[in-house]
Amino acid sequence: MNILEIIEKKKVDDILTKEEIEYFVENYTNGNITDYQAAALIMAICINGMTQDEILDLTMAMANSGDILDLSDISENIVDKHSTGGVGDKITLIVAPIIAALGIPVAKMSGRGLGITGGTADKLESIPGYNINIGIDEFKQNIKDIGISLIAQTLNLAPADKKIYALRDTISCTNSTPLIASSIMSKKIASGAGSIVLDVTCGSGAFMNTKEEARKLAKLMALIGKLANRETICVLTDMNEPLGYSVGNSLEVVEAIHALKGNMAEDVKDVVLNMCIQMMNVSGLYPNPLENKYKVMEVIENGKAFEKFKELVKRQGGDVSYIENPEKFEKAPIIMPVLSDDFGFVEKLDAGKVGKAGLELGIGRKKKDDSIDYRVGLIFDKKIGDEVKIGDVLAYVHAASPEKAIECVEAIKEAYTIGNRKISKENIIEII
Amino acid sequence: MNILEIIEKKKVDDILTKEEIEYFVENYTNGNITDYQAAALIMAICINGMTQDEILDLTMAMANSGDILDLSDISENIVDKHSTGGVGDKITLIVAPIIAALGIPVAKMSGRGLGITGGTADKLESIPGYNINIGIDEFKQNIKDIGISLIAQTLNLAPADKKIYALRDTISCTNSTPLIASSIMSKKIASGAGSIVLDVTCGSGAFMNTKEEARKLAKLMALIGKLANRETICVLTDMNEPLGYSVGNSLEVVEAIHALKGNMAEDVKDVVLNMCIQMMNVSGLYPNPLENKYKVMEVIENGKAFEKFKELVKRQGGDVSYIENPEKFEKAPIIMPVLSDDFGFVEKLDAGKVGKAGLELGIGRKKKDDSIDYRVGLIFDKKIGDEVKIGDVLAYVHAASPEKAIECVEAIKEAYTIGNRKISKENIIEII
Repeated sequence: MNILEIIEKKKVDDILTKEEIEYFVENYTNGNITDYQAAALIMAICINGMTQDEILDLTMAMANSGDILDLSDISENIVDKHSTGGVGDKITLIVAPIIAALGIPVAKMSGRGLGITGGTADKLESIPGYNINIGIDEFKQNIKDIGISLIAQTLNLAPADKKIYALRDTISCTNSTPLIASSIMSKKIASGAGSIVLDVTCGSGAFMNTKEEARKLAKLMALIGKLANRETICVLTDMNEPLGYSVGNSLEVVEAIHALKGNMAEDVKDVVLNMCIQMMNVSGLYPNPLENKYKVMEVIENGKAFEKFKELVKRQGGDVSYIENPEKFEKAPIIMPVLSDDFGFVEKLDAGKVGKAGLELGIGRKKKDDSIDYRVGLIFDKKIGDEVKIGDVLAYVHAASPEKAIECVEAIKEAYTIGNRKISKENIIEII
Repeated sequence: MNILEIIEKKKVDDILTKEEIEYFVENYTNGNITDYQAAALIMAICINGMTQDEILDLTMAMANSGDILDLSDISENIVDKHSTGGVGDKITLIVAPIIAALGIPVAKMSGRGLGITGGTADKLESIPGYNINIGIDEFKQNIKDIGISLIAQTLNLAPADKKIYALRDTISCTNSTPLIASSIMSKKIASGAGSIVLDVTCGSGAFMNTKEEARKLAKLMALIGKLANRETICVLTDMNEPLGYSVGNSLEVVEAIHALKGNMAEDVKDVVLNMCIQMMNVSGLYPNPLENKYKVMEVIENGKAFEKFKELVKRQGGDVSYIENPEKFEKAPIIMPVLSDDFGFVEKLDAGKVGKAGLELGIGRKKKDDSIDYRVGLIFDKKIGDEVKIGDVLAYVHAASPEKAIECVEAIKEAYTIGNRKISKENIIEII
């Protein structure tokens, strides 16, 4: 077997064998196959696609390229949760304590943000003292003791995926359904959970811009999960406008705190409820699906979900006084309103444009080593469907300097489309 | 403009603009674009193809990436000749002196061999003393004085092509018609001739395995030539068996010497005559095409072509006594016959297998820096259509050692198919 034959096969749209895919993944990871040979193969895959078997083989080869976390000694019922990424996506911060409060163990490793979508790891780090880099033993101990731990990806999970993902980024091969599906699923399979609920985002602020693309990706991931013996459910959610009313690190933690106390924006509520219901379904601990929604509402209303979040923060070294009194989070020095020049209804609030404006403020990273400003971000007063008068505040920009604030105000104005139609939005598109 | 946008366009089968192609060629040549980005683009081109305009733009961008030879001060009638490569292809050694003897200036830069096809530059160097690395001024002076010069490619012609060609080789993208056509034509256009006759080889010993592929490539190169203002004619020739009766460096020089004296194998004669006739046609110096064949035969029969070859060798420092007495060429230490185990007719003599066996003997280079043994090679006694009895000599292996000889004898036996059909072969397939 050699890489030239493998490239040639995929070039002429032949089907690669399991052995050929494993040979590629192993030898690219250890450096025997060059970047330019991998680039040629990846491009051929992008154009000619892959069969279901090939995608499963690629997923498993990447999953097996590094550590595989074994959580079976903790529980059989561990459910993982993952989002394909979005602007203002603080769902994990809300869902994880709810699920733990419901008695389902939560063992979640989260990524850092890159590009317009933020990372849960960064958001948690905006809580003073919170240590997301604890070791795997402490991680497991926390789950045993309090039923929850949220950490950064410290293990060497799916290093092949990491290398291939970085390459795809430099050769315009990010938007390939087989490659996205195998990338996500390889990490999930290596993460050790028995079942997985995926939030597949769709719209201008997501990888998948259309419903058709998102549906295709969701079906593919559900199938890979099934074939890999992990029950997998996908919740398709809208990501045309930012999720919830805040975008930023500590600003989103504050929104999550309010949400856990029952104060949720309508779109956040829809996603949280649906994700929680599906996680309960696949956990095997809640056999009556019709009751799930009420159980979720119950742990929010009786404060157990919020208490679980405080317990988590405290256990991982965070200053709980910030969670109890969110006003303590340091504010950005400049807070500047975005005022409407027009009247009517918000027809569009482009999540992609908001994401880019946020990136300029310092919310996230353009390059891997960029630093993050936890204070900065955006608070939205008006979202799709809301009525607007001239001079109304559309949003507030939280910025590190007046220059950054002015620049961002203009960018956010550009993200809004005010028209005369009152548009109704569907937050949850489909469950697959 | 950036390379990611260019890759993305070709990935989704869009048409690249002239500016985009020039941007890629320029920035890949100077190192601003990485090998892996170029590999992704080249693979996308291989799979999705290119329009005629794109191919012309790529050809011109590569031609303009280095020196452009200007021969207009020597003559308006310079005709270049090129072969897409074959096993046993000594046509240049025969055609060039004939054409010069006919009064058409010959200014030819030849490549070195790589892989199974030999290079004219290597063959010339097997003549003791022959200097193929003379400077461009001496090259031009020789053409002015004696009407001919054959040298190696010393100028920096089409460096972009060189770099892209090397990359294609490592990512299984050699057999792409747009890329082959633009590679050949970029070098020919940079070489400065006003018109071009191409020998497009077709068969197991050539890049193009089928007539259809060869025809497509020929038509494309003729079109590029026309658009680039260079009259271009393609002669499609068979390369299923080796051309002529010898394969090797000095062995082929000896065959060329005999050919220039009128002793030509039938297939060599067909190709030589057709190439010469077309070169005369495009030169503008022979307005009556019906007479061309007789003129060629005339300069062979009256010894002028052979004299011109001696003049060339002498002028470039070669020892003419070798040309006058080819027995002087050093022989390989082992000459071993390949005997037939079967009887009937030669139905097949696989040029690809012969080429590979020759490579193992040391005729050519597997890698760019391999050294060559000028003495070794093969002499064929039986070719397609010949009758064979058990024990007949099929061929002689000229080898550096007994081990190499034995190994080669086996490989050459494998290359022959002896059956009961007497096959007739067409040497010239078509003129395009």
